[in-house]
Amino acid sequence: MQNFELTILGCSSATPTSKRNPTAQLLNIAERFFLIDCGEGTQIQLRKFKIKFQRISNIFISHLHGDHYLGLPGLLSSMHLLGRTEDVHLFCPAELQEILEVQYKHSQTYLNFNIIYHPHKYINNDLIFEDEKVEVRSIVLNHRIPCCGFVFYEKPLLANISKEIIAYYKIPFHQILNIKKGGDFTSESGELIPNEKLITKKLIPRKYSYCSDTCYDERIIEYIKHSDLLYHEATFLSNMEERAKETFHSTALQAATIADKSEVKLLMIGHFSARYKDLQPLLEEAQTVFKNTVLAVEGESTVIEYA
Amino acid sequence: MQNFELTILGCSSATPTSKRNPTAQLLNIAERFFLIDCGEGTQIQLRKFKIKFQRISNIFISHLHGDHYLGLPGLLSSMHLLGRTEDVHLFCPAELQEILEVQYKHSQTYLNFNIIYHPHKYINNDLIFEDEKVEVRSIVLNHRIPCCGFVFYEKPLLANISKEIIAYYKIPFHQILNIKKGGDFTSESGELIPNEKLITKKLIPRKYSYCSDTCYDERIIEYIKHSDLLYHEATFLSNMEERAKETFHSTALQAATIADKSEVKLLMIGHFSARYKDLQPLLEEAQTVFKNTVLAVEGESTVIEYA
Repeated sequence: MQNFELTILGCSSATPTSKRNPTAQLLNIAERFFLIDCGEGTQIQLRKFKIKFQRISNIFISHLHGDHYLGLPGLLSSMHLLGRTEDVHLFCPAELQEILEVQYKHSQTYLNFNIIYHPHKYINNDLIFEDEKVEVRSIVLNHRIPCCGFVFYEKPLLANISKEIIAYYKIPFHQILNIKKGGDFTSESGELIPNEKLITKKLIPRKYSYCSDTCYDERIIEYIKHSDLLYHEATFLSNMEERAKETFHSTALQAATIADKSEVKLLMIGHFSARYKDLQPLLEEAQTVFKNTVLAVEGESTVIEYA
Repeated sequence: MQNFELTILGCSSATPTSKRNPTAQLLNIAERFFLIDCGEGTQIQLRKFKIKFQRISNIFISHLHGDHYLGLPGLLSSMHLLGRTEDVHLFCPAELQEILEVQYKHSQTYLNFNIIYHPHKYINNDLIFEDEKVEVRSIVLNHRIPCCGFVFYEKPLLANISKEIIAYYKIPFHQILNIKKGGDFTSESGELIPNEKLITKKLIPRKYSYCSDTCYDERIIEYIKHSDLLYHEATFLSNMEERAKETFHSTALQAATIADKSEVKLLMIGHFSARYKDLQPLLEEAQTVFKNTVLAVEGESTVIEYA
């Protein structure tokens, strides 16, 4: 069964603490490693958690607040110094190109690999990445500066056929893939066997939605609906709702409300304000509305199983 | 007695390791806090070692390789978010201003304090900072891109006069400062008492020299001569002298040779290549030439006493 696993590298908001790093996370879908945001210190976190960062080829940057991208120049530089030649694809605000290129100009750096820029168009449900296993679509978040969320979709999976079924219906080898893809089968005797009689189990493809940074905005619900895992920022507790509104952030209660209305399976909250040393009140607040909530914890990996 | 203390925040070269951060250090002279270089993660190191970073008003950046400045945008951003209004003085390559301003433009950041830029002129022994207690002078290092070292001088200190001497010669209060500054004294009876008979101890001002990054270059010796503490990069062991030369770095042996020829009191080596997990061989190599050598250790503070 292919992997679908999220590892938190940083879950602090703007100012890091001695315990929490700024935002970064690594999503592994079928051994594709997607880096989502890259706050300062991300390369150090990757090393600490023994993640081989040369395996990352696609990096998604939500927006240009420093706590979401300041670790990128250092990570790219280390990739270069350690001999990388393979392209890196950057899905990011267009302006990030200028920010990086000014640095490379002044440090006289010539990377041994290409950075392929895929600038955000800020369109909901826009297909920004696709390969044979995964699709990634952007969603528009509501923050102080232009900001994208990302929805990662596992592509429809092939069903399984048991050896017994193959033998029983005498299914020839060249027909198997067609059946796994959902096709029916006509037996030697001319009988039409419907697909659901042939396959053992149909796996429902998994879906991960990343929503940070954003204020409470119900317009995202239709795109993140039924996610297996939703990461939604929860910078503040509800008693700071006004502050959340002013700064275009969310409270734990608001994150839970979005999770509830989106009927997701699991909510992970993160992007915690440095003022919260103890995160338990944030968790408890969210759980009053959406029971199946967990806290983002740096270094911890969450495996999403098939439903 | 006023403080003169160096704290290492990072001592790795270009690629950080899970144990060592890129270059940064904090020098405290008489409660002035000078930050010297600011590699990625410096603000996190400052928090970890419980250093109040709002006390830093003067930041010295040697050159524009990422491992010496990529922590600066995040540190400045946290200073801003935590309410700073006091100016920050940046002694740095002129181009750093463009690098920072491009970021502020695209993140729509308006700092609540001013950054006062003091661009490097790359002149030896150039006075770049001065207040009533400290002088800082730049020196030209020999690296792949323009690079400055910094020499921190404690200003000449006032001598002490004992109460007994004051009573014995009946020295009036208004004359004391003059004597502390080195003046002689004429007693009531008209006798001239030379300064050295009046003062208890003349303290020799302390001197700290920072030389990173640089290849072996004896031209710096006249400026760092007789330092109480010399920090000299030692990226490699001698068996990689060719690699050191190509990359404009130094070996531990070369750092020690510079220390020896400069007749410094103590040599601290740092900027270690990530390939060295065990640093003992670097220390031992340096000590074959200059016995009084120590390794830079993150989080450790070195107090420089008066000679």
